[in-house]
Amino acid sequence: MNKIEKFIANIEPVDQGWISKALERQNSLTKPPGSLGMLEEISCRMAAIQKTLSPRVDRKRIVIFAADHGVTEEGVSPYPDEVTAQMVANFLRGGAAINAIARAAGAQVLVVDIGVKSPIPAVDGGDEFIQFIRKPVRAGTRNFMKEPALTEQETLAAIMVGYEIAEESKRKGANLIGLGEMGIGNTTAAAAITAALTGLPSATVTGRGTGADDDILARKRSVVDKALRIHAPSQADPVSILRVFGGLEVAGLVGVCLGSAAAGIPIVIDGFIATAAAALAVRMCPASAGYMFAGHLSAEPGHIALLKIIELQPMLDLRMRLGEGTGAALAMNIIEAAIRSFVDMATFETAGVSGKQELAKEVRI
Amino acid sequence: MNKIEKFIANIEPVDQGWISKALERQNSLTKPPGSLGMLEEISCRMAAIQKTLSPRVDRKRIVIFAADHGVTEEGVSPYPDEVTAQMVANFLRGGAAINAIARAAGAQVLVVDIGVKSPIPAVDGGDEFIQFIRKPVRAGTRNFMKEPALTEQETLAAIMVGYEIAEESKRKGANLIGLGEMGIGNTTAAAAITAALTGLPSATVTGRGTGADDDILARKRSVVDKALRIHAPSQADPVSILRVFGGLEVAGLVGVCLGSAAAGIPIVIDGFIATAAAALAVRMCPASAGYMFAGHLSAEPGHIALLKIIELQPMLDLRMRLGEGTGAALAMNIIEAAIRSFVDMATFETAGVSGKQELAKEVRI
Repeated sequence: MNKIEKFIANIEPVDQGWISKALERQNSLTKPPGSLGMLEEISCRMAAIQKTLSPRVDRKRIVIFAADHGVTEEGVSPYPDEVTAQMVANFLRGGAAINAIARAAGAQVLVVDIGVKSPIPAVDGGDEFIQFIRKPVRAGTRNFMKEPALTEQETLAAIMVGYEIAEESKRKGANLIGLGEMGIGNTTAAAAITAALTGLPSATVTGRGTGADDDILARKRSVVDKALRIHAPSQADPVSILRVFGGLEVAGLVGVCLGSAAAGIPIVIDGFIATAAAALAVRMCPASAGYMFAGHLSAEPGHIALLKIIELQPMLDLRMRLGEGTGAALAMNIIEAAIRSFVDMATFETAGVSGKQELAKEVRI
Repeated sequence: MNKIEKFIANIEPVDQGWISKALERQNSLTKPPGSLGMLEEISCRMAAIQKTLSPRVDRKRIVIFAADHGVTEEGVSPYPDEVTAQMVANFLRGGAAINAIARAAGAQVLVVDIGVKSPIPAVDGGDEFIQFIRKPVRAGTRNFMKEPALTEQETLAAIMVGYEIAEESKRKGANLIGLGEMGIGNTTAAAAITAALTGLPSATVTGRGTGADDDILARKRSVVDKALRIHAPSQADPVSILRVFGGLEVAGLVGVCLGSAAAGIPIVIDGFIATAAAALAVRMCPASAGYMFAGHLSAEPGHIALLKIIELQPMLDLRMRLGEGTGAALAMNIIEAAIRSFVDMATFETAGVSGKQELAKEVRI
């Protein structure tokens, strides 16, 4: 039993008794039962995860893992590798989309270099919302068209980086974690993971990522096809799937998923890459799904197949396809509103509001 | 030309020049063009409405009109009329869903009694987020199974109440208005309006509202059918449709839609009732649609037909069916995030991030 398997054994399923208690309160609030739709399901599950009828999300954190991908040698992205490092610098200066959207959600951004290949440009500035950790496992993955992206040891090490960040987040009092990532080439790795996890053909699960044209898209599909034939990982072996395709940021996110479930912290999944990690975590430990919320449906075609593995419905569908944790950060506002209504609303009894009436049998029509 | 027609003549279409300027900035930001999906469209239109590349939504207001409906005599709701007044009291005490969700969005709640039939219970408490105005046009509408719900004079007076609230909101500096409503029986009036505006059969546009059982639903459909035959309003005459079916809260919301467009304030539509008002406003003045954002897709079956009239795509689909402005308040967070990313993000140039590369023609595959 390796370290990861030991941790997984400690993850408890979300307590159904708390779900029932929360539902009872939900149905006493001054609104027709069920009329807040998904908000009611969110707040009941948040109450069960936090084991309280007063759940809180006042300490939100977006964890962004950044890493590079050897497979970019195959021409699968319109952007050069250097953009991963440049965007890390942009995150640290507070100039990226995730900074703006996390600020709007009142969430801290934690950027983790788990395997960025290019030097990260020096950064001035940033603000109180931004933190940075260097935990590189290696300088980008290997090109999985030539060899497995990672060794087993590297894979487990990257998962552990994420796991420990979840533990540290618990110690810091975080009560909601969003998953974010940055890595030029990572939609190709995520497409390979999706095809391997689901058995779906590469054409179904491989999309344009952040802006592939027709030529690049055709190359991405061909790369995913060939890589699946070369490595042929078993659908039932998520660690091997992760090892052969990478990336390091995906492995880090798997660790955050498992670590958050172990620590009892709810997490919000972002788009395609983050959901690939979440689906791997759920295959490793089905109980971890109870701690997850699906932030949004990405425009990437493979995303929906991954959400089916986790059996979650996304809160938002805004045709976003950026990653970085932007969908997760947006969804944090919805979770907060769900909780505020659950905790703050009056009950029918305290508010003196009448419930449904027995209608007179005789009504003229 | 009546007063309303005079106001309508003053509404200017949203400036396409500003849309183009905003799009230019959008495409310079450090993300692949279009990758923030609907957020990009929202921020461009917000910039055009506010005529600035630094749009703001720091003064948000939800306007909730409350009124009763004579048609409840027909047994179309499981709740008694008194609940309208009781819920107004609940809004004023801060105990309703809209209070909790508006607080989460940082929005003020303005409650307007535009025709509540029962006495509103005395209220202690409330908080700095809550305001109340009494502007009753009459104590609920007439039963439209017997006679038109309103006279033409009452209809125009109720529209003017809403129009003046939009003007007052402008003077107070509001830069985003959400539409809310409360009125037992109002999904029946909204279904009749929807059928009249669209020509769709009553069964397609009449739903369970806040919780009708099969018997009540059958009655609602029969009521809508008969009322359409009795009054047979012209599809092209929105004021007559509003006059014959009511309600006063719908008329108030029509006034807010027109007044906000005239004042250049963007508005967020809520669910079925609010969208019935928005669709009437758009039929009265097509240019007003440019100032509207669709907050969410309600679980009510008629909602989508109304959104087609306004040609808007809803931001959220969370199976909500409460009204009160809850969907509008939730969507305000998304608009805020859209604007924050538009205003705060770095450009490729300032951040030193590389754009798309010309890929080498020779790539191994």
